[in-house]
Amino acid sequence: MTLNYFDHNATTRVDDAVMEAMLPYFQQEFGNASSRHAYGSTARRAIDKAREQVADAIGVQPMQVVFTSGGSEANNLFIRGAADSLKPGHIFISGIEHPCVLKPAQALALRSGERWVMHQLAINKLGQVDVGAANEALTVQKPALVSVMLANNETGVIQDVAAVAEIARCQNKDVYVHTDAIQGLGKIPVDFAALNVHAMTLSAHKIYGPKGAAALIVDKRLLLKPLIYGGGHENGLRSGTENVPAIVGFGVACELAKARTMKTAQHVAQLCERLEQGLTEMGAVIFGAGAERLPNTCYFALPDMEGDTLVVKLDKAGFAVASGAACSSVNPGQSHVLEAMQIDPLLARCAVRVSLGYSNTMEQVEAFLQAIKEIVAALRGMSSLAL
Amino acid sequence: MTLNYFDHNATTRVDDAVMEAMLPYFQQEFGNASSRHAYGSTARRAIDKAREQVADAIGVQPMQVVFTSGGSEANNLFIRGAADSLKPGHIFISGIEHPCVLKPAQALALRSGERWVMHQLAINKLGQVDVGAANEALTVQKPALVSVMLANNETGVIQDVAAVAEIARCQNKDVYVHTDAIQGLGKIPVDFAALNVHAMTLSAHKIYGPKGAAALIVDKRLLLKPLIYGGGHENGLRSGTENVPAIVGFGVACELAKARTMKTAQHVAQLCERLEQGLTEMGAVIFGAGAERLPNTCYFALPDMEGDTLVVKLDKAGFAVASGAACSSVNPGQSHVLEAMQIDPLLARCAVRVSLGYSNTMEQVEAFLQAIKEIVAALRGMSSLAL
Ligand SMILES: Cc1ncc(COP(=O)(O)O)c(C=O)c1O
Ligand SMILES: Cc1ncc(COP(=O)(O)O)c(C=O)c1O
Repeated sequence: MTLNYFDHNATTRVDDAVMEAMLPYFQQEFGNASSRHAYGSTARRAIDKAREQVADAIGVQPMQVVFTSGGSEANNLFIRGAADSLKPGHIFISGIEHPCVLKPAQALALRSGERWVMHQLAINKLGQVDVGAANEALTVQKPALVSVMLANNETGVIQDVAAVAEIARCQNKDVYVHTDAIQGLGKIPVDFAALNVHAMTLSAHKIYGPKGAAALIVDKRLLLKPLIYGGGHENGLRSGTENVPAIVGFGVACELAKARTMKTAQHVAQLCERLEQGLTEMGAVIFGAGAERLPNTCYFALPDMEGDTLVVKLDKAGFAVASGAACSSVNPGQSHVLEAMQIDPLLARCAVRVSLGYSNTMEQVEAFLQAIKEIVAALRGMSSLAL
Repeated sequence: MTLNYFDHNATTRVDDAVMEAMLPYFQQEFGNASSRHAYGSTARRAIDKAREQVADAIGVQPMQVVFTSGGSEANNLFIRGAADSLKPGHIFISGIEHPCVLKPAQALALRSGERWVMHQLAINKLGQVDVGAANEALTVQKPALVSVMLANNETGVIQDVAAVAEIARCQNKDVYVHTDAIQGLGKIPVDFAALNVHAMTLSAHKIYGPKGAAALIVDKRLLLKPLIYGGGHENGLRSGTENVPAIVGFGVACELAKARTMKTAQHVAQLCERLEQGLTEMGAVIFGAGAERLPNTCYFALPDMEGDTLVVKLDKAGFAVASGAACSSVNPGQSHVLEAMQIDPLLARCAVRVSLGYSNTMEQVEAFLQAIKEIVAALRGMSSLAL
């Protein structure tokens, strides 16, 4: 049975054009980009080109792109790398950051002998960073580091990064502001300058690129210590033999993202609208409804229908969806995003995320609504029998 | 022109069997291994299998394998991760470690407020860690962390890791001993237990696997802090969505390495013998000659023939070789390995490394010797004209 893949916020299929661009670099042009022979220079040129493609997607210069192995590494590089080049102070992150921002910030604050203090910016019931509350918090304690994601991976709610950045910069002209834009790229327009940040994280495997490539985009004046020391690659900021095929694929994926963000957004928005209409008719709660959200993401709960159970039943019925935060579900538990939104824990247990991609169709959405109807009917029948 | 690839210590072509195993994971089985649907569980099973293959190649249990994005990351994970879980003390590394061991050790010692002290173990003229000197050094200062590579990437000289580990363990029963075995795997037999270490680094792209996958192998009692925090992947030691295709490829590459190390070693040893005989006849110095070396590596100097010049000329003639340490030649400079061996700097400037692989042939070696003869004759002619 071919599954209907509805989990694009977790990862995506590598696009045909991306695959085609990557293929030559595994077995023909397999050189080490640092080597001083023809194999080496071919690899180096391929990386240079990808650096331009990535830079171009968000309106920066190629030298501002620091390639890493993944989004988690890039976020850790920012948190630890910036902290290690600053005097200890206050680090502010939003209450709904991905664990790969939250955990390094916590680790920093726990480091013995350090005086880093971590604060979480309050989230409102719509899943947005409360800009008024952020204004107050940043006035009380002068921020040294700030990290607010562009769009949340669970709810899809888009954050007012530029506003928080503006507040932070007013409080401390030397502050470093970062945004994890991984879920934004390819789904909404992303412009580095417009977001008013000093650093931004992007990742290939969420935009039909390969796993194994991502980037930290940096302001030219940002001082960073590396997380991975060694041969001095990436301008000294990230050592290690470059993953040439993955970087090449990332470049092409960025080019595709830039070219088709608007068209994809329109397409998936239509599907999401129908999906949410159908789910609402079944009595579902849509988290973040009313907030500006990614056009592809629908995070809902059918009261009394446990999310995990639903995900397993939907999988059997041929639909791949997520419960809670799929990217970190090696450590299952309640969604910290819904907790920050003060959602009733009983309802939060019912959370299911559908995240669509450009290849999904209206037929798939209709089939999904039908499947969920049948599953719910069967489960309701069972639980009344069990009572 | 098809180049004769003689630079296998820098990186290798992905093997056909590795490529075949990886391919399905880019576009068909592209799931996130943490997802709780069929795509996710397929990815998870693929990683589990690769973990067994890697473990099997060096005689450990799968749970001892921590996947990382590369050798540099794995070495940094050991140095920083172990240091951060220990009381500050003395860290000993050999004088010929790769920069991705040397630099994080230096960074540790430079960290403000820390009391880590770094020492470099002396190297003899053959390029070996001087075990007698190591014994003295480790007696004077009790070691907390030790890292000695299994085989050097430039000279190919094999180190007596087990002896140094034994000395370190005698001085401090709580010491952590690590070996960077990246250049050993696939070229000589590598056995975790026999080396008597607590941790070992392996990398895929040096053994006909893909760039983007490597591992830190850990003793079960080793306490480590992660370098990359987040979703808690790899038993909490390395967060980030797993690079499934690269990990799958690494697994197969380890299986191949295990199966054909002996056969490949015999084959390349024959080629190297002929190569060194020919080079010696031309007046070349072979670095590390007399020490036990990797069967595929020949690091030589033709007096007065600058290494960089020779590499460029050989490239034009169709031979891909390295000068100095190719893996870190984004920062060119004199080889710190030859410096540690107390090689005359004028001779060190002439260093060229040939590193062979299983697909190289005797015909290629003969053609190489012929090419180098012609290049040398031309250069000598030129320089006598220029004088
Ligand atoms: C918003 C966000 N940040 C960071 C990550 C981490 O990326 P990765 O797991 O690829 O390292 C993810 C997804 O996994 C994400 O959705
Ligand atoms: C001995 C040794 N250690 C570590 C590395 C670093 O590996 P990577 O550049 O793939 O991270 C290399 C080669 O590059 C090496 O030869």
